[in-house]
Parts: sequence; structure tokens; C-alpha cells
Amino acid sequence: MFIELDRESRIPLYTQIVDQVRDMIESGTLGAGDRLPANRELAKALGVNRTTVTTAYAELVADGLVSSEVGRGTFVNDIPVKIKKQADGARTQPSPMPWNALLTEQNRNSWISGVLHQRPGEETISFAYSLPQAELFPLDDFRRSVDRVLRKEGRVLLQLGLSNGYAPLQEYLVSQMALSGIRANADEVLITNGCQQSLDLIRRILVGPGDEIAIENPTYPGALSVFCGGTNKFVSVPVGERGMDLDVLEDVLSQRRIKLIYTIPSFHNPTGATMDTEARRRLIELAARHRVPVVEDDIYREMRYEGAALPSLKALDRYGLVIYINSFSKVGFPGLRVGWIAAPPVVISHLNRAKEEIDLHASLLTQAAIYEFSRRGLLAKHIKRVKKVYAQHRDIMLEALERYFPEEAAWDKPEGGMAVWVRLPERLSADQILVRSAEQGVIFSPGHYFYSSQPQQNMMRLSFTMTPPALIEEGIKRLGGVVKNCLSLVKKQRAASAADTFCALV
Amino acid sequence: MFIELDRESRIPLYTQIVDQVRDMIESGTLGAGDRLPANRELAKALGVNRTTVTTAYAELVADGLVSSEVGRGTFVNDIPVKIKKQADGARTQPSPMPWNALLTEQNRNSWISGVLHQRPGEETISFAYSLPQAELFPLDDFRRSVDRVLRKEGRVLLQLGLSNGYAPLQEYLVSQMALSGIRANADEVLITNGCQQSLDLIRRILVGPGDEIAIENPTYPGALSVFCGGTNKFVSVPVGERGMDLDVLEDVLSQRRIKLIYTIPSFHNPTGATMDTEARRRLIELAARHRVPVVEDDIYREMRYEGAALPSLKALDRYGLVIYINSFSKVGFPGLRVGWIAAPPVVISHLNRAKEEIDLHASLLTQAAIYEFSRRGLLAKHIKRVKKVYAQHRDIMLEALERYFPEEAAWDKPEGGMAVWVRLPERLSADQILVRSAEQGVIFSPGHYFYSSQPQQNMMRLSFTMTPPALIEEGIKRLGGVVKNCLSLVKKQRAASAADTFCALV
Repeated sequence: MFIELDRESRIPLYTQIVDQVRDMIESGTLGAGDRLPANRELAKALGVNRTTVTTAYAELVADGLVSSEVGRGTFVNDIPVKIKKQADGARTQPSPMPWNALLTEQNRNSWISGVLHQRPGEETISFAYSLPQAELFPLDDFRRSVDRVLRKEGRVLLQLGLSNGYAPLQEYLVSQMALSGIRANADEVLITNGCQQSLDLIRRILVGPGDEIAIENPTYPGALSVFCGGTNKFVSVPVGERGMDLDVLEDVLSQRRIKLIYTIPSFHNPTGATMDTEARRRLIELAARHRVPVVEDDIYREMRYEGAALPSLKALDRYGLVIYINSFSKVGFPGLRVGWIAAPPVVISHLNRAKEEIDLHASLLTQAAIYEFSRRGLLAKHIKRVKKVYAQHRDIMLEALERYFPEEAAWDKPEGGMAVWVRLPERLSADQILVRSAEQGVIFSPGHYFYSSQPQQNMMRLSFTMTPPALIEEGIKRLGGVVKNCLSLVKKQRAASAADTFCALV
Repeated sequence: MFIELDRESRIPLYTQIVDQVRDMIESGTLGAGDRLPANRELAKALGVNRTTVTTAYAELVADGLVSSEVGRGTFVNDIPVKIKKQADGARTQPSPMPWNALLTEQNRNSWISGVLHQRPGEETISFAYSLPQAELFPLDDFRRSVDRVLRKEGRVLLQLGLSNGYAPLQEYLVSQMALSGIRANADEVLITNGCQQSLDLIRRILVGPGDEIAIENPTYPGALSVFCGGTNKFVSVPVGERGMDLDVLEDVLSQRRIKLIYTIPSFHNPTGATMDTEARRRLIELAARHRVPVVEDDIYREMRYEGAALPSLKALDRYGLVIYINSFSKVGFPGLRVGWIAAPPVVISHLNRAKEEIDLHASLLTQAAIYEFSRRGLLAKHIKRVKKVYAQHRDIMLEALERYFPEEAAWDKPEGGMAVWVRLPERLSADQILVRSAEQGVIFSPGHYFYSSQPQQNMMRLSFTMTPPALIEEGIKRLGGVVKNCLSLVKKQRAASAADTFCALV
């Protein structure tokens, strides 16, 4: 194959290669099945960069003139001349697809895009995410667990599995749940890719078009995107110091046909509130009377820093009405994406089918790794350690809040969980504060993202787990400064005019 | 705490423990916050099995009387006596939830439950699954790749990540796709949990209520469950030797408003048919003219045993209308659940949002592991090896079919893929043959599971990849025997009566 490059030309070198090879194919110099020189060879022969040849070949492949095959080489295709010409003609004026007209609508103002995708810089102090502190991950222990399971049954773990999950992990979860009073057999457990997927699966099998659900307000934004996006119907039930307001729920249940209730009874996200045992029993009885399933999100259960553990709704449930979800993301490793659902067999059987339809099954490697890590007591050890650390984080944050936040701000001390829920004076906007605090290197989650309705602009969720203690005080100090500044600006402005919005500060 | 057990009693020991602890709590002998003895201690003190105590405690926890906390112990709760009584009352007659009335409808006759959940015994020869042969997995190489990425960036991999995927894997896929002529940037790639999830994601962002899609008939059953279940609308387009019948497609596109076309142009599942380049160009032009997106499922691309590679639809697409899906499940490890989608940025951006909603992101550990394995050239090496082996499997199966199947059966030699698609005489039912062949220790996938409409009962898909060569001939021999028996029974029966169904054989 003879190619001559004009290095003085304004035509790029790769285009010259493409044109000459094309000519050779069209003229018959190169025939169907002929092999082009390897990228490396041709680059060397022409004295050009290897990328130049790669790009040229990619273009020829894209034109359908040649085909590349990993490990074999690049070959001339068998293409009638007419087709080639037609393709070239079409190429000059390709009219792009009108995608925006084709795509279904999406809710764009979500917490995930608003907050989760804020990737803080190295120096940023983040209170934005209720995530574990990565520095505490027992990497060597985990790595050894992974290595062990791959040695033991690598062939099984890398092959396709069953949708309900890795059986030893199911059995292990059964025994763990028994410790908190949940009686379930292995066929009442489905392994998922975390609580987010569990919620999506539950929605699929229970919530049909027009069905209305009852959801706490505020609540986990990932639940909002599953249950309250698009045309979904829902009723918001306020959350107080003792969790979901059951008087409101009782009214709702007697006045409307509710398809399911979603709740986070322990260390509610974002408020930190916990339902006491009496409230839990009442919720179960209400749900039983109205025949409404309850989805219990128990993801923060283990993150209790003081006080005695309370029975889960699932443990109190004698009617088989609770669908229980939990995961390894808060106690262990969120990047693994392993969670589970415990529910009556008929529900699990439907969930299994839905799981098959959406992704066949959760990765067996991650399931086996977390199983091995747990089975050897390493998870319990890790939980014990992080609880101690997070309790300190919480206390440091609470002290710093006392010290640096204006007295008009208010919050409760959470007995567990991963965040403090702070109420600012009503005229302050957490969004505006975030803009300013980010300039000072501190970020957090504005509270309005957590509301299913009537978003409160003056709430902020300050997560304390992810950030090392030394930075918590510094972060709250800076944040408190911003809040105080904004507050005094608002006061001045108010004194100067009747305007009672924060807009002038933008 | 004093407990006395009556070993002669018909009341189970654990119930005796429960009753006595309950009495102590109700009588005030045990107060709120009191700690119960550890399971081990109490078991020893009472001379009972530890499980007995565990069960008793679980019951007490379930009653809300005590709470267990891993690593701390079991404590008496603070519960008003009134509540306890009430709960006891409720307990006698719990009325279970009417789940069947609440659950949304599901299609029950699916391939997944019909075939995928047939777990063959050790001795069974399986032609049922188009899966890799697990004996060929390069376990040590893979294990070392996992170990390496955990050592290198374990903290990142175990922490929550971004929904679009692990960036180095995205970059790698961009470079790999360039080899087959697909030009895409990293922001045009989304990592998913495999092709099944990719299909589900695509359905979510493109197919609204009432939208009609065009699907090959037969096709991958996982696509049927995504696109053709429930109230979804679809048009079936027959697949011939050259793949999808484009004359039919052209008629469909000009007569109906189709929302998307789903196709497997290379080594179509289950037929093995491959669209030639001319047909591919025609499909693109048809879709462009009618402004219909094409979902190209290219999962079998690398499994070509002879002939030159053909350009993917995506490589030929100048309109930005192709959504390309592929995965590591056929070339690598299906148990890992890692696949990807390449599409124009606006489509990927919508898919990203949908991915966040359904499970936040794919496991970072599995993404990084397959990236490391691929980057080091180990995947290419593995593919080279398995292609050679699978080509032999195919040839052995084809020879055995010639030898042992009746001459009335017909099939084409596939140039690639993982299965042979066999047509039996029309009066034979693959389901009935499966019942009999399973008794002989041989299973396969009856063809009717693959049809979106007008299921053919006389088709069978025989996958050749998973089974070692020595067993392929034996399996086909036994299966051929069953087919021949059934055929002669049908012939006799037909001669004896006018009945032309197979029912009498059941």
C-alpha cells in the first residue's frame, strides 16, 4: 500500500491517509478482504504519530469502507460502489435527530443534580452528604475479603446468577435481622443495588397509574424522585420531633385511598427525628386498619449514638404489611451498591420478577465480598468504630453550632443518623447562604430539596459524618459567619425598607 | 434474672423463657434500660441450646419488650403497660394483608422464569443459556486486577460515585469503540449494570404511555419483558437470514408512528442472523427518514468466528439516531453486571438522570476491576482464547446435529454468537421435547420464549458456549434421540388418526 503525505498541505495528515485509502478501494487497488497495515507499521512507514493512523482508520471504519477487529487487524469491506457514493452524498447534509422532541419529560430541579453532583474541591469542607468518612474504611480487611471469595468461588461469582441474590448473603441477613426481632426466611429477602433501587422496585410492583402514596415531608430526596416525580400522585405528611405526624396520617388514611406509606422511622433523613415504640405501634395499627402497606426505610438503624435501640416497624408488624429496606451504604461502603428488601413471600416474588426485568441481578462479586466481610465480624467491628467517631463528629458539630451560629437558628440534637437539621430565621434562604459559603469553601444541603411539598427555604441539612473532626469546627465557624452576615443584612434592609424578601442580596 | 424451665412441659423452652421475661417486665422486676444476660451466658446458665435463647430474645424484641443491639446486648424497653396489653390483644387475630389485590399485574409466562431459573443439576448437559464457559475464566488474572484497584484507590471505589460511571472505564470504552469506527466522547457514554438495565433505562426516557416500538421477532427475551410486557404497544418485524426484514420495517415506518426500533444486527439472538453492511445502511436511512431512534444491541459483536467484522450501525450513523448498547457479559463475566450505552449527549444526559433515580450508579468496584483487567490487555487475551474455543464448540455442535438430528430439522451455520437456531418439523413442540430431554439430562431454550408475537412452538435455541466440547456431542446425541422418537410417534399417530396435534404425547 503506497501512501504519500504532503506535509505542507493544509489538509490534515489523517485526512490525506483516508482519501488515499478510499481512492485505492474505489479504484480496485485494494479489494474486499485485503488487510491494511497495522497502525504501528503504517505510522512508522509514514513517519507520523500512531494516533494519526488510528484516527484515519476510525474514519474509514465509520465510512464502512474497512473493518477493524481487535487482535486481527483492519480489512477492506465488500461494498458496492453505488452505496459508497450514496453514503458520501448523505454525509454532506446529515440532519440530526430531534431528540428533545422524542425524550420523555424529566424533573430537572432535583437534589441529585443540585447537590449530589457538586463535587467539592480538595480544600472544600463538605457538610453536604450523609456519607461515611472514607478515611475510616478498613481497606485491608475488605481487600482480603474480596480476595478470599474470588479464590473460593470465583467461577460462580463471575457467572450469571439468580435475581433474588447470593444465597449466603440472604441467609446472613436473615440471621442479622432476627437480632432486631425481624422474622423472615431467605425467600422473604431480595438483594438489590441499594435502597434507591429498592424504592424503585417497590414503586414498580405497587404503584400503578393514578395510585396515590403518603410520604413524609420532608424526606429523602431519592424517594421524592421515585414517588413524587412526573405525574405521580402523593400526599405529604409532616414530620415532627417524634417523626411522621400520625394524626395527620390518620386523617389522610380515612379520607383518601392511599396505596402505600413511605417512612424513615429511625433517625429520619433529613430531620433526625425518631418515632418511639408507641408511635410505631400506632402506625402499624393505622396501616393495618386501612390495609395500606408501609415501606420502612431503616438505613440509619445502626447509626445510634445514644439511647436504646427501638424495634423496627417490621418487627412489630403482625399483619405482614411492612416492606423493609436497608443497605450496606451507611454502615459500610456506598460505592459497592448493595442493599436488601425483606417482605412477605408474595411481595418478594413480584420484586424478583421486577429485578430480573431491570437488571437480572445484583453483582455477585460485591454481594459475596460484603457477605465475607460481615461473616468474619469485620463489619460489626467497623460499625463499632465508626459509631464512636461519628458520635464525636456530631458532638463537635453541635458545640460549634452553639458557638458560631446566631441565636435565632434552631436545631435538635439527633440521637443518631448522619446530620443535624437546622432551622434559620424565616427570611434567610439556604440557597443564598450556600452561594456565599461555597466561596468560603464550605458546602451543605439546602433543606428545600427534601420537601415533597411546600419547600422551606430556611432549612439546612448539615451532615457531620464525612468530614474529619478538625474541619468540622472550622467549617461551622465559617458557615456561622456567613449566616450571621446574611442575618444582619436582612435586618438592616428590613429596618430601611418594608421589603421582606432576601432578593436584594443576590 | 431467675428463670426456671420445665423440661417435661409441652410448652417449648423458648416460649417458657419469653413468658417468664415478659412477666418480669410487666411486674416491674425488670425495668426500662435493664440489660438481659448475653445469649451465651443465659444458654449456659439454663443448660439449653444457644438458639433457644436467640429465638426467645427475638420474640421479645418482636413484641417490643426488649431491644437488641449488635455488640452491646439486649435491653428492656420503656413501654406503657397499656400498650403491651393492646399489642397482645391484637396479636391473637392478625388479619394478613391482601397483597394480591394490591400488586400490579406481571407477565408470568416469561423466559426468565421459564428458562433462566431452570438450574441444571451437576450432571445435566445444558444448551439453555448463551453464557460464557466458566471454566475458561482467567481467575488469577481477574483476582489480581481487583486487588490492584483496591490497593490503588480503594477509598474512592468504596465511596459513593457519580451516576455516569467510573471515568477511566468511560475513557477506555471510548478508545475501544473508536476501533470499530464509533466516534463518541466520554460524555456520550453511560456505564450501566449490563444490557438488561440499558434497555430498561432507554425505555424510561423514550417510551411514554401509548408509544409504539418496532421489535424484531423473534428477539432477546429480556427485551420482550422491557418493551412488550403489560400494556406496552409494539409491532413485530420478522427476522430472516439477513436479519430484520427491512421491507416490512419500511412499511411499518410509513404506516405507523414508531417511537423506537430495537435490533441485534450482529449474530442476532436467537437466530444467529447478521445484517450485511448494505442492510445496515438501509436501516439507518429508513430510520433517519422517519426520525426514529434505533437501539443497537451489539452484545455479540466480538463473538465472530469467521468472516470480516462489519461496521456497527452506530459507526454508520451520521444522524445521531443510534443508541448503542454493549456489555462485558458475553466477552467477560456476566456475574459482574457491567455494560454501557453510547448515545448523543442529550440522550446520555437523560439516561444519567434515570440511572440516578433507579440506583444512583453502578458498583465502582466492578467497574474498576473490569477496567483494570481490560486496560492490561487481559480481556483481549481472554477474548482471543474463548473465540477459538467457542468456534470449536460451534463446529462440534453443527457436526453432531448433522449426525443425530432427523433430516426434517433445519438450521443455519452462524458466523458468530453463542447458539444455533433449529427449526423442527411443525408438528413437534419444543416444550414437549424439553420435558423428555430433561429426563435424559439435557436442557435447552424452547424457541417460543423469544417471540414478540405468533410464537413458533417448533423452534429451539441450542447454545454451545457454556458446555465443554466432550459433552456437546453427547448432549446433541441424546437430544436427537428424543426428537426422532417424538417425530416417529407423531408420524404414527398421524397415520393412525387425523389428529395433527402433539397433545396425545403429553
